[in-house]
Amino acid sequence: MQQPPSFADVLEAAARIVPHVRVTALLQDREFDLLAGAQIHFKCEHLQVTGSFKARGALNAVLSLEPAVAAAGVLTHSSGNHGAALAYAARVRGIPVDVVVPIGARDGKVARIKEFGATVHRCEPTTAARDAALAELAEATGKTVIHPYANTAVMAGQGTIALELATALGAIDDIVVPLGGGGLSAGIAIALAQAGPDTRLVAVEPLGAAEAQASVNAGRRVLDWVPDTQCDGLRATIGEPNLAVLIEHDVEILTVSDPESFAALRLIARHLHQIVEPSAAVSLAAVLSHPKRFAGRRVAVVLTGGNLDNEEAAALLQGP
Amino acid sequence: MQQPPSFADVLEAAARIVPHVRVTALLQDREFDLLAGAQIHFKCEHLQVTGSFKARGALNAVLSLEPAVAAAGVLTHSSGNHGAALAYAARVRGIPVDVVVPIGARDGKVARIKEFGATVHRCEPTTAARDAALAELAEATGKTVIHPYANTAVMAGQGTIALELATALGAIDDIVVPLGGGGLSAGIAIALAQAGPDTRLVAVEPLGAAEAQASVNAGRRVLDWVPDTQCDGLRATIGEPNLAVLIEHDVEILTVSDPESFAALRLIARHLHQIVEPSAAVSLAAVLSHPKRFAGRRVAVVLTGGNLDNEEAAALLQGP
Repeated sequence: MQQPPSFADVLEAAARIVPHVRVTALLQDREFDLLAGAQIHFKCEHLQVTGSFKARGALNAVLSLEPAVAAAGVLTHSSGNHGAALAYAARVRGIPVDVVVPIGARDGKVARIKEFGATVHRCEPTTAARDAALAELAEATGKTVIHPYANTAVMAGQGTIALELATALGAIDDIVVPLGGGGLSAGIAIALAQAGPDTRLVAVEPLGAAEAQASVNAGRRVLDWVPDTQCDGLRATIGEPNLAVLIEHDVEILTVSDPESFAALRLIARHLHQIVEPSAAVSLAAVLSHPKRFAGRRVAVVLTGGNLDNEEAAALLQGP
Repeated sequence: MQQPPSFADVLEAAARIVPHVRVTALLQDREFDLLAGAQIHFKCEHLQVTGSFKARGALNAVLSLEPAVAAAGVLTHSSGNHGAALAYAARVRGIPVDVVVPIGARDGKVARIKEFGATVHRCEPTTAARDAALAELAEATGKTVIHPYANTAVMAGQGTIALELATALGAIDDIVVPLGGGGLSAGIAIALAQAGPDTRLVAVEPLGAAEAQASVNAGRRVLDWVPDTQCDGLRATIGEPNLAVLIEHDVEILTVSDPESFAALRLIARHLHQIVEPSAAVSLAAVLSHPKRFAGRRVAVVLTGGNLDNEEAAALLQGP
């Protein structure tokens, strides 16, 4: 398996990607803090280039490739944000890129992948079908597979968020992030061990896709979980190196229901005027649904992505 | 009539309000620039405290009052954002505040006014009814009326946006703002004359409320225009000192249709993940509907407000 990155890898990633990513805005709202009972700083990675934090990891991975390897191009499977991020990274480097997209992926995300110039291949929405399509394409094209999260350079790239938070906010109490495959959690955990040892990392899963928590409890990856959540970015199975990092760094894991996440999404729209994905809203949902855990603390809530088309956003805003 | 502010007034306003307002974020998106054919910097005043730029002017006015005058409280009429801003300013100073709100004002805006603690009085949605209700309340309570735009301190407060833009962006080519009563335009025009003489100010009206342009052409306020626009924040009649400033500084005025503004609103949602009011989207609509005017230029587009409730936002995102 790919190894977790070192802190030095995260620092190198920051230097490598800085010309091509944004130091994203932090939003704060006192009215919102009163509502939440905590001091919340929203890290706006949905305003990152490509509309999600995934640009960081994809860029670091693509820019790290040896020239001869890069020239053949890159490919991945993705239901959305990693695909758009990889397409952007490939465009930055000027190399070809293919993305295998399962049927059922959100329209807004597929549109993003195409906008950034990737060749899109559709497949059935099962892990087996995704892996088979990917293997076939890799074999046929000689392109390098950039896995969405179980990849050293991707984890290092995502960890750069922790460096920006430490620079902007100093010693905060908690960083709260959504947990899918674990690329973001692993990168931030490794960065925090050096750059913010007093800051707790809290990773949040939808109740219907809480296999990472189950995996941590079991000490090994739980592979037979059938995800049941509308947070489409968080259905992935935790990666092997990612799980190792979560266990080693004793990352706290919380779970939230989809209705809690949708309610958080609507609060973010109403009070912060931001459109984010359901998968991005789980972080705030965790803070609001665990008030004792976060009472009075300084918390960075990472809003990870905003790639919805307007029809999807309208439906989510109207709520139940 | 109240006099236009001087440049010194704008500088003093900036120093006065800085503890209580945000230096709002600037967003840029290269994909969006390709679409627009110009380099656009979005000044996010919808992320200002109270959800609109109006906090600047209201704070400057309230904080400028003599203590004995302030103690009696303040009042205004407003269909929305100035009311919320005045309520916030009064809360900062710890004084009572009343707002006369015409029937038909957007729900999201009335909610904001109440959230910030104002006592709300409803009246019929005519200028005569608004003025009568205001006069009656002023007489009965001894509170000071803070006009939404035809007020020296309010204009000076709104002008502070130009100082922030000059600091962050240097010598840009154009600043594009919505034009209603003219408080924002007048403040920025006065600030630019000193702080950015090579920057052009472009003020944008809905076609159905283009009485400011008509007034500039006539050399006097056109008072018999019946507004016909869904950009609810821009239905006001240009103020007398405001018109004088527009004429003196030769401010360029463009008009846009409501469908153009709604389309701009949806682009802002889709590409920038921001929820803004129709009245805020007119600036971008002007840039997109006058491509020759803005081709290749560095343009600051001021997004003035974002106070929609989620139902209103959903309806606007779905479009025609």
